[in-house]
Amino acid sequence: MPKQVDHEARRRELVEASWDVIAREGIEGTTLRKVAAAADCTTGRIAHYFSGRDELIRLALRAANSAAGKRMVEIAKTESNAHERLRRVVYEGLPLDAARLREWKVWIVFWAAAASNDDLARENVRRYKEWQRLLSKLISDVSGPDDADVHALTLVSLVDGLGIRTALVPSKSNRSLARATVDNWIAGL
Amino acid sequence: MPKQVDHEARRRELVEASWDVIAREGIEGTTLRKVAAAADCTTGRIAHYFSGRDELIRLALRAANSAAGKRMVEIAKTESNAHERLRRVVYEGLPLDAARLREWKVWIVFWAAAASNDDLARENVRRYKEWQRLLSKLISDVSGPDDADVHALTLVSLVDGLGIRTALVPSKSNRSLARATVDNWIAGL
Repeated sequence: MPKQVDHEARRRELVEASWDVIAREGIEGTTLRKVAAAADCTTGRIAHYFSGRDELIRLALRAANSAAGKRMVEIAKTESNAHERLRRVVYEGLPLDAARLREWKVWIVFWAAAASNDDLARENVRRYKEWQRLLSKLISDVSGPDDADVHALTLVSLVDGLGIRTALVPSKSNRSLARATVDNWIAGL
Repeated sequence: MPKQVDHEARRRELVEASWDVIAREGIEGTTLRKVAAAADCTTGRIAHYFSGRDELIRLALRAANSAAGKRMVEIAKTESNAHERLRRVVYEGLPLDAARLREWKVWIVFWAAAASNDDLARENVRRYKEWQRLLSKLISDVSGPDDADVHALTLVSLVDGLGIRTALVPSKSNRSLARATVDNWIAGL
């Protein structure tokens, strides 16, 4: 592997290991030592890639967001039916499988950190602008441009509430309820 | 003051002080020393009322929930117009002033803790059952019993999403958007 690629791949591994630790232990329980153990490396190696715990956590949160965003954009590109496109993109933003559940736990931890950190709160605003813009476009394809922005804000908020509930208790019935609530909302557009 | 009342009043003061610290510093930054400073007492006095930091945090979260619940039940009792009753109860659950903003920050921190703690996750389920039951009743008064439970789940989720957004960036425009989104949703019932 070329050196640059190797560097990126290693960073990526460490970020993924930190997702596991954050999702399992919360921000409070996330230490460089535990991330190193999860990535099967030394804390010295982590120090080679990140300036410290805070940077690792911040990049982990950013990477979780960007991974979800990429999957959504991919679905939006490939699904031709407008209703189905909106539905599938929203499902992708819910904790309906193990990978998305891990992402959701990272996000919830991120919110808690952002509640007492203006930098992280600003990062959250950027993330929501993109997410709302995408949903507004997809809603507009379903029901026209009128009120698409208002609908997008409603849908974003609805997904957040359903996501929290499902992430905290990821039971089959909560997953079904989350899907049904989204379907019901989209049907009312 | 009788001794028992004094005891409860002191506990209450300590719980309120811990809300300030949790909202400002997050769970990670909440130490008994900081809560003692906020309550203008010694850490020894805190130890007299709570077995330790974890118990104080847990009771603080429970008390925030119960304070909001009491206000909502009070509104539900006194407002005679069904639409207005629903609207005012939902507003009471949003971070639209400094006191409710503090509560919201405590809740967001609570979710993050519950994401890696089954006991707290179960506590969250209990809290949501009560909140959904109240909204289901109020929605039923507005639009009849059909689908009142489904609507209540949708509204609870919507409030959570709007609450997070507004709590992280408590600007005037976010507060207005939250109100308008709720009004718009209720109008569609």
